[in-house]
Formats: sequence, C-alpha cells, structure tokens
Amino acid sequence: MIEPKQIQLTLARYVELVDAGDIDGILALYAEDAVVEDPVGKPAHIGIAAVARFYHEGLGRLDASARLDGAIRASHNGCGAVPFRVDLLWGDQPCSIEVIDVMEFNAQGLIRSMKAYWGELNVIARPTA
Amino acid sequence: MIEPKQIQLTLARYVELVDAGDIDGILALYAEDAVVEDPVGKPAHIGIAAVARFYHEGLGRLDASARLDGAIRASHNGCGAVPFRVDLLWGDQPCSIEVIDVMEFNAQGLIRSMKAYWGELNVIARPTA
Repeated sequence: MIEPKQIQLTLARYVELVDAGDIDGILALYAEDAVVEDPVGKPAHIGIAAVARFYHEGLGRLDASARLDGAIRASHNGCGAVPFRVDLLWGDQPCSIEVIDVMEFNAQGLIRSMKAYWGELNVIARPTA
Repeated sequence: MIEPKQIQLTLARYVELVDAGDIDGILALYAEDAVVEDPVGKPAHIGIAAVARFYHEGLGRLDASARLDGAIRASHNGCGAVPFRVDLLWGDQPCSIEVIDVMEFNAQGLIRSMKAYWGELNVIARPTA
C-alpha cells in the first residue's frame, strides 16, 4: 500500500507536470488499467491508451499553467485529493478552472483511478491585463 | 438532478453546520439511505441511523469549529467536493484537520454518499497561545 507521504509527493508532482505540459511525465504516473473521468459525469477514459489520448487532446492543445490551491489530502488506504487551479484561455478569455482531482493508487503506487471534480461554476474569468 | 449552484450552497451550509455543531441540521441534508466513509478506508456508516450515530459520537463529543478552505467544486452530475478545515483539541493539543469531503446527491438534492479524504498528515498542530 502506498504511504500517505508518497501520495502527497506524487500528487504535487502531478500538478507540476500539468503546469509543465509534460504529458509523458503525467502518463508515467498512471497504471496500464487506469480510468479517468474528467469532469465527473463525462464518459470515462478506460485504459492507458485512452488516458493518453485524453491528455494529448486536452492539455496537449492548451497553453495552460497549473498550481496547487490548498493542502493535498492523503488517506491511509491509497487515496488522495488534490485541489489545484488551471489557468488557460477559454476562447480569448483568460480563465482559471478550480479543480479537485481524487485519485486512487494501486499497490505499485500508480494511479488507477482519477476523477476530476469541477463544473462551469468553477471556471472563473481572469481580468485581461 | 441537483444544479451545481445548489450543490455549492448545500456544501457551504454543511460546513456552517459542522462549525455550529448542529447535528440535526447536518442529518437533514442526508438521504435515508446515505452512506458515509470518514476517513476513506474506514468501514462505511450505512443508512441514516448509522450516519446519525457517527456524527453524535464524533462531532457531538468535540468542541470543534470548521471553516471553508477553498472553492467548492460542483459537477453537472450531482457531485461536489468541499475543502475545509476542522479545528479541535487532539488530547490537549489544538489541531486543524484538513479535509476534503466528496459528496454525491440524489435526485431530491439530498446527500446519498459522503467520503472524507484526510489522513494523519492532514492533522496539523496549532500553537498553544
């Protein structure tokens, strides 16, 4: 079982990799049989190939940055919840999306499930400088 | 289906009720068949009677306060994630517990599932004044 400290380190690293747009780095955190639902309620991406497609078609096409937005919660049964913000252009409008990703890890410390909690009320316009 | 705005209002109210120690108010937010897992990984409390026991035996015995600790994330399929902190005495030591509760609502807008994400790394000692 992955330790809470390792969950916190992995999820902090995940946000850094999203910030860097490093999709290969992100995918290396996922298990082969990973399932991603982002946002929750949308059809799940099942398996690492589908997860890879999701990141390439989403994050890979955006000029996004990301930063932690609160403490990373880590349980003793291999789960974590990470609050963060993603800054991006929504059309021409600078926006921040407030997200909480909930992850379940497998025995090898790889992410086997990710669910992203957010909706349109969490898309906040930022002033154009 | 409950709207994201209603999810945000209900979860903000939930934190206020935890802060007030208003267990009757909290239980009124839950469905009869609610399931609570707090923290995730512990055995679930299944059904409103078991959920009531959980709150009475936990929150009911603590001199706790609670406050929001970030934006409430609300999805379009009746789910929400609320980051908050609970201040309490852990023995004689003032502590804050950093929690993220993930809730699923039923068609009537009542909570049918609550999972609390936290672990011992999220129990932070506060200085004794």
